[in-house]
Amino acid sequence: MLRLYDSRYSGNAWKVRILLTQLRIPFERVTLDLAKGETKTPAFLAKGRFARVPVLELEDGRTLVESAAILLYLAEGSALLPGDPYLRAEITSWLSFEQADLLRALALPRFYHLRGIADQMAAKIADFQEFGYVGLVKLADHLERRSWLVADRYTIADLGVFPYVAMAPEGGYDLTRFPSIKPWLDRIKAQPGWVPLLEEAVA
Amino acid sequence: MLRLYDSRYSGNAWKVRILLTQLRIPFERVTLDLAKGETKTPAFLAKGRFARVPVLELEDGRTLVESAAILLYLAEGSALLPGDPYLRAEITSWLSFEQADLLRALALPRFYHLRGIADQMAAKIADFQEFGYVGLVKLADHLERRSWLVADRYTIADLGVFPYVAMAPEGGYDLTRFPSIKPWLDRIKAQPGWVPLLEEAVA
Repeated sequence: MLRLYDSRYSGNAWKVRILLTQLRIPFERVTLDLAKGETKTPAFLAKGRFARVPVLELEDGRTLVESAAILLYLAEGSALLPGDPYLRAEITSWLSFEQADLLRALALPRFYHLRGIADQMAAKIADFQEFGYVGLVKLADHLERRSWLVADRYTIADLGVFPYVAMAPEGGYDLTRFPSIKPWLDRIKAQPGWVPLLEEAVA
Repeated sequence: MLRLYDSRYSGNAWKVRILLTQLRIPFERVTLDLAKGETKTPAFLAKGRFARVPVLELEDGRTLVESAAILLYLAEGSALLPGDPYLRAEITSWLSFEQADLLRALALPRFYHLRGIADQMAAKIADFQEFGYVGLVKLADHLERRSWLVADRYTIADLGVFPYVAMAPEGGYDLTRFPSIKPWLDRIKAQPGWVPLLEEAVA
């Protein structure tokens, strides 16, 4: 059985968990405590060279890292990743954009809020938001004329961009500035097999 | 014929130009002047939604954006991108890591130096370097035991990570701290078809 190493609050790991569920692939979940340094032990580094989650452990013990790579690997052959080379490149471009332009800018302000240090990190949060809003404008502009990022249907492009955008308000971002984003988030949440970040939150 | 929109100093566009040359794919080069806002015109935005280079225009007029997506698209079927799904995911993980962890941290200090504003941006450069060195340590550790990032041979993983690492000293990074990195950069530069960033520099 596949084994997914994740953490309680990781949006990158959340993407992979949603996809595994949507593809009905059975998996074992190992949730690490980042605050205890559990991604920095020699044993974990042997599985995940970048010292972070998600890490996907295959049945033969080999591991894969980086959410974009794992999504592309798992979705191969499914309806969530078209076979057409142009559409695949479009999807990869969104996964890459999300990692370069949204991930840290959206995730770190949220992290500072979750840790209760938002006040002392106010200057850094302002820097991240200045950059993050530029990325959100590009996303919102694209969605003005479309229901989905690529190919007029739900793909791993939407899934890969979803988590940190959905959680951005926890880092102080105002998504109401972007009327195209909220309906797109809602369409993703309505997809069969979607699961929330925290299972207990939907009890 | 393919058309590559690049700029004089873009490492992301440089990757694509090297790959096109290595694959012996003829292309037309259109070099934009970022300082004049040439990536922000409505005409260019219709080709490149993220307002940056590289953009690859196909013969039918469709365009592709984001260097990682373009590298994967162009290298398909070549020796630079293995067919094995695990190795492909490994390659994608390095392309994603480079965009998330190295690109901005390495490129922006260089940009500030090129623009002659390094002194006034000293605090930001220090922030970027603190983050960038963490990524460089991960790269260097991986190369301690290997000649190439994936599959014991040169692939687009090496090419995708190469430019901003090679140019990092222009942003004040000290690569002599990492004995494994310089020989790897030299191996990449020695690959057939490799081309320098500035053609006139090798006159």
